[in-house]
Amino acid sequence: MGALKGTEPHRSHTSRLEAFSDGILAVVITIMVLELSPPPGSTASDLKPLVPKLLVYVLSFTFLGIYWNNHHKLFSATRNISGGIMWANLYLLFWLSLIPAVTAWVGQHPRAAWPAALYGVVAVMAAIAYSPILTRSIIRVNKDTRVAQALGSDTKGSISVVLYLAAIILAFVNPLFSYSLYAAVAAIWFIPDRRL
Amino acid sequence: MGALKGTEPHRSHTSRLEAFSDGILAVVITIMVLELSPPPGSTASDLKPLVPKLLVYVLSFTFLGIYWNNHHKLFSATRNISGGIMWANLYLLFWLSLIPAVTAWVGQHPRAAWPAALYGVVAVMAAIAYSPILTRSIIRVNKDTRVAQALGSDTKGSISVVLYLAAIILAFVNPLFSYSLYAAVAAIWFIPDRRL
Amino acid sequence: MGALKGTEPHRSHTSRLEAFSDGILAVVITIMVLELSPPPGSTASDLKPLVPKLLVYVLSFTFLGIYWNNHHKLFSATRNISGGIMWANLYLLFWLSLIPAVTAWVGQHPRAAWPAALYGVVAVMAAIAYSPILTRSIIRVNKDTRVAQALGSDTKGSISVVLYLAAIILAFVNPLFSYSLYAAVAAIWFIPDRRL
Amino acid sequence: MGALKGTEPHRSHTSRLEAFSDGILAVVITIMVLELSPPPGSTASDLKPLVPKLLVYVLSFTFLGIYWNNHHKLFSATRNISGGIMWANLYLLFWLSLIPAVTAWVGQHPRAAWPAALYGVVAVMAAIAYSPILTRSIIRVNKDTRVAQALGSDTKGSISVVLYLAAIILAFVNPLFSYSLYAAVAAIWFIPDRRL
Repeated sequence: MGALKGTEPHRSHTSRLEAFSDGILAVVITIMVLELSPPPGSTASDLKPLVPKLLVYVLSFTFLGIYWNNHHKLFSATRNISGGIMWANLYLLFWLSLIPAVTAWVGQHPRAAWPAALYGVVAVMAAIAYSPILTRSIIRVNKDTRVAQALGSDTKGSISVVLYLAAIILAFVNPLFSYSLYAAVAAIWFIPDRRL
Repeated sequence: MGALKGTEPHRSHTSRLEAFSDGILAVVITIMVLELSPPPGSTASDLKPLVPKLLVYVLSFTFLGIYWNNHHKLFSATRNISGGIMWANLYLLFWLSLIPAVTAWVGQHPRAAWPAALYGVVAVMAAIAYSPILTRSIIRVNKDTRVAQALGSDTKGSISVVLYLAAIILAFVNPLFSYSLYAAVAAIWFIPDRRL
Repeated sequence: MGALKGTEPHRSHTSRLEAFSDGILAVVITIMVLELSPPPGSTASDLKPLVPKLLVYVLSFTFLGIYWNNHHKLFSATRNISGGIMWANLYLLFWLSLIPAVTAWVGQHPRAAWPAALYGVVAVMAAIAYSPILTRSIIRVNKDTRVAQALGSDTKGSISVVLYLAAIILAFVNPLFSYSLYAAVAAIWFIPDRRL
Repeated sequence: MGALKGTEPHRSHTSRLEAFSDGILAVVITIMVLELSPPPGSTASDLKPLVPKLLVYVLSFTFLGIYWNNHHKLFSATRNISGGIMWANLYLLFWLSLIPAVTAWVGQHPRAAWPAALYGVVAVMAAIAYSPILTRSIIRVNKDTRVAQALGSDTKGSISVVLYLAAIILAFVNPLFSYSLYAAVAAIWFIPDRRL
């Protein structure tokens, strides 16, 4: 590949992976809006059933925005790409792609236990897909670079997983507990990872 | 990050943010077309209910085109990116992502007050998200650059906010006043920002 | 802008416009597939109503593929971008964004005159938006470059407009004439513009 | 084109083709999620009809992920682009764009023969579009480069086509045979092409 790279400028190793991930995340975020379909009536009170849908849309939008921010930071510090990283990244995108489906279910049944719990299941699977799965696959082929040193421990990631698991269980007590915990995780991650 | 940047070419600081914003805007624009679903019949008169939908689609398409144009100009003059800029940008994208929902509601009830008013609420929130929120977050980390000097005052932005607020109130007199004001704001912004 | 450009590598002048256009075209092409929703039954005969939808999808996919190919060639030869080019490009994207709506209407009423005619109206408006509107806006700010010399006359564009107008009128005789003419225009444009 | 290229940095020959393909693939993957629309009820048992839909979504997601991975490898080793490559690439994207439609049909009738068979028809057409159609069009204009030498024989591609054809026939015996074969093909392709 050396000869080819030497004779012609080419996008960096990570840029197509980043562009593809951006594409998926952009579509995932935007198709959630389709759930905010207009009410049949045209008065302010017709908007009432949209309120929980809008609130969960705000949560999921923030959630996906956090992933995009951290993904951006992570790959801007990543030098080498492997097949393992590509599949770990697709595995993360798979779980994120289910966010619109669970967002729609929660929006339609905001007081029900199962939708609130399933939202947490997708969230915790995405969290694990990001860290440790994706981060470890990156460290494996970037051992001597800044990203490997920076990603030493992952306190935030571990706290998130614990809070998500608590939220899944508490959904069967009161879904409002779950939503509060999802918002708490979002708040923890709001500030991008300072290690990178 | 210096060592990494020095050894390998990498996309500029703003390019992934721009690419992600482009992705969101492209999907936001295009899913509005789903509301222009074909009429059940196959004659010219069956198209009549689509006329208001098409008109508000033209308005929203222009509206989003203006944001894309100005966003493009803004970030092509921006040098440094911060976490604050990333979140300000996502906040703008959040409000723009609601345009398809309000466009659909207006298209279904073109003579009703609330849809026309809500369109203005989303429009004014997006306008404020762009300026001052996004522009100020850019100036904060780009103090000595051309973009900071260029973005001194924002007369167009202030006029837009005033016109949007007037449109929201006038929707309850006659929605046609609101639509005229939305078109007027679009006309003001049609020419990209000469400051950049 | 010179100082800024000199200190930091930046994407070329046309690349964000190309990326945004690619995004819109990618979504426009793909949401047409939503019209190919699965039939209620599960036998081969249940697929029958999908046949005209699939055929018009092939036509529209080819149509949009041709635009993408020519757009790609056009902008890879374009050096300078102006506000006029940006708006001419958005105007082209506007008409192309209506393709899914007319494709859906034709797919549901393949033997009716009005859908076949409206398909031609959108096609001819897109053709005019591409040439002369977009090409002239490019020539205006790229006078001494290869693109200006190459885009001297546009025989293919003129023939396309004439064939589209004929197809619109002939839709009221028999829509099959229209479809044949649309396929003929696609065949003419299948080979990318040799002038560039 | 030399003069133009010499005066201004420009994206590499393949990058816009890659970006456009990424855009289409990202939307194709994500609109499949729309089929996972939430059940009307809010209990765990309401999720039951979603199980086959989710399983076929996993299959199609993996399937498209494999294409993206191999497409990425293929074009990162490709130097020259021709009109033939562009159309071969669009032809591949056409067949991949039909994946959401057949995925939806299979998800709604997981035990029926025809949806399982049609899934295989689309899969085999996409496989042939990738290899030999796309790979040969690349070799034709990249004769002395690494990609041509690397793409000498295509055992995996031939095996895939045979397995897909078997799956289409066996769908009429039992669709589970077909699904097993689709999963087997995915497993074969899971590891990206080592030739590149």
